[in-house]
Amino acid sequence: MSAVAGPEEVAAMRRAVELAALGLPTASPNPVVGCVLLAPDGTTVGEGWHERPGGPHAEVAALRDAGERARGATAVVTLEPCRHTGRTGPCTTALLEAGVRRVVYAVPDPSAVAGGGGALLRAAGVEVEEGLLRDEAEAGNARWLFAARHSRPRVTWKYAATLDGRVAAADGTSRWITSPEARLDVHRLRAEHDAVVAGVGTVLADDAHLAVRLDEPVARQPLRVVVDSSGRTPAGARVRDDAAPTWVATAAEVGTGPDGRVDLEALLRILVDRGVLTAFVEGGPTLASALLRAGLVDRVVAYVAPALLGAGPAAVADLGVTTIADARRLTVTDLRSVGPDIRITLEPKEG
Amino acid sequence: MSAVAGPEEVAAMRRAVELAALGLPTASPNPVVGCVLLAPDGTTVGEGWHERPGGPHAEVAALRDAGERARGATAVVTLEPCRHTGRTGPCTTALLEAGVRRVVYAVPDPSAVAGGGGALLRAAGVEVEEGLLRDEAEAGNARWLFAARHSRPRVTWKYAATLDGRVAAADGTSRWITSPEARLDVHRLRAEHDAVVAGVGTVLADDAHLAVRLDEPVARQPLRVVVDSSGRTPAGARVRDDAAPTWVATAAEVGTGPDGRVDLEALLRILVDRGVLTAFVEGGPTLASALLRAGLVDRVVAYVAPALLGAGPAAVADLGVTTIADARRLTVTDLRSVGPDIRITLEPKEG
Repeated sequence: MSAVAGPEEVAAMRRAVELAALGLPTASPNPVVGCVLLAPDGTTVGEGWHERPGGPHAEVAALRDAGERARGATAVVTLEPCRHTGRTGPCTTALLEAGVRRVVYAVPDPSAVAGGGGALLRAAGVEVEEGLLRDEAEAGNARWLFAARHSRPRVTWKYAATLDGRVAAADGTSRWITSPEARLDVHRLRAEHDAVVAGVGTVLADDAHLAVRLDEPVARQPLRVVVDSSGRTPAGARVRDDAAPTWVATAAEVGTGPDGRVDLEALLRILVDRGVLTAFVEGGPTLASALLRAGLVDRVVAYVAPALLGAGPAAVADLGVTTIADARRLTVTDLRSVGPDIRITLEPKEG
Repeated sequence: MSAVAGPEEVAAMRRAVELAALGLPTASPNPVVGCVLLAPDGTTVGEGWHERPGGPHAEVAALRDAGERARGATAVVTLEPCRHTGRTGPCTTALLEAGVRRVVYAVPDPSAVAGGGGALLRAAGVEVEEGLLRDEAEAGNARWLFAARHSRPRVTWKYAATLDGRVAAADGTSRWITSPEARLDVHRLRAEHDAVVAGVGTVLADDAHLAVRLDEPVARQPLRVVVDSSGRTPAGARVRDDAAPTWVATAAEVGTGPDGRVDLEALLRILVDRGVLTAFVEGGPTLASALLRAGLVDRVVAYVAPALLGAGPAAVADLGVTTIADARRLTVTDLRSVGPDIRITLEPKEG
């Protein structure tokens, strides 16, 4: 049976959360993890954190730090130790081989491939406790945990429309509905995501570039993804330039969904397997509708320009909703002015 | 020639603005006006303000207060004295008969019927000065001055739509797009206006009631106006109940505009003549479009519900805009959450 965590273990977990955060700039698409090893008398004998993909996991780093002092120690770690062999060996094996007696972790690993480390350790006779300071440890890993739990990236759908909900005028023109300030804000949001996704319709209509353009240097350009069922993206499309990596995702490559187009669940699964934890979808209406209907939108960012058009396409196409009671309800999580425009951030209502 | 106002006159105008404000709850649809009479030595010999339609104007009230001491005095008044005979005689005549020597007023009277009092007084040999503390005096009379300057009420167009700009679902249902909090807010806004206006389509579709319903007592129900070119408002429509006065404005009564429907400029002229200084237009899309196209919307209040419908009518019908450069641009003057919904207040851009 596992003992209740004492004050030394609580303090060690707090330290482990701090250590984990050191990996925030570089660990993606891996989780950030921190680990502290405590001797039976409660003194710290080793510390480690996960710095980057391919580098040692936090537990292994801490075990190296502790050396022989790891024997009989308690490992306090922010995430359940993995039991799979990726670019490095399983942490469970390393902990067992080092003679760790007790493991306290904050958050269970939800991923099918790496999860179950706790049970494995317990079966090997190690004392295991789960959940200590779980909320604190979750916060730093929100992006990774979402992707691990849902086997897909967290999807943000962004659009820009007029007050009356038009994303373009009757003649198809849409440059520019929103202000330079709003467009700069979009580039900042792009830079926060691992992939920027658009339907081929948007690429054909606007020759959308989808790369991040900012005055300050961009650490890493997101992957540009064109959802292009039948491969219509022109060879000379701007999205194919070398400003950022690009994937033209065709139905032939990804598979076909029930609507005869690119299978969006399969697309997102491929993306998460490629390390995309967050996807920023920039339309158009067809792609947005398909994602909304499939329940694959986790956040909506709407830029609303203080303008009226009176005609032109709406931000979202048919959702299969015919009566007001079936409207898809969301919750506003943020509301602000961006230059002359308004930015509304929303999340779907639970259930 | 008129002398520059001295410190006693500035102080007196400040007092006159205070006096004018006493009329705010009761003077509508008349302007609020305050008047202070100063003896040649600068001492106050009379004060007055306009309390209610049919009651004495501020100048007359001040003259009564001063009695014989008005002779040779300076009248300091927030609005140019009127020169027309309405329910009371012209103030210019009263001032002349009382032997007032000098008149200082803040704001010229823009109305065709009552304006020109300053010139009349000057022609009669009175010293006249215009513009003292004009901004302060304007503020209290903003509603009346707008109506007087434009010969129509100030028009606010309100609508409630989903995030994707739908005012109803595909089947026409619209109850309720927005929250109880937003609907309460609408009743508060209705109560601030002199008339609530809707097209007959809204009456036919929703059996809209258009009266103010609030827990607190309502000082005065706004006039309900149904814009109903061919007189289709049913006898049993809720808008015809006795909760508030109602005017079903037909093309036969008002006149026909260039589009063959009720002449909206004529409608607004009739309303202002009936004492309606502010009109709250609640749709639907046909009426809103017609008002917008005619440049007759002075303010937009948009309630945006955090919901998506994907289909259904838009808040505004054809505006004659076909390309993005011709979008009707507005300026956001207020942005706030109302319960779970968002309220955006906007004004058309100048020019």
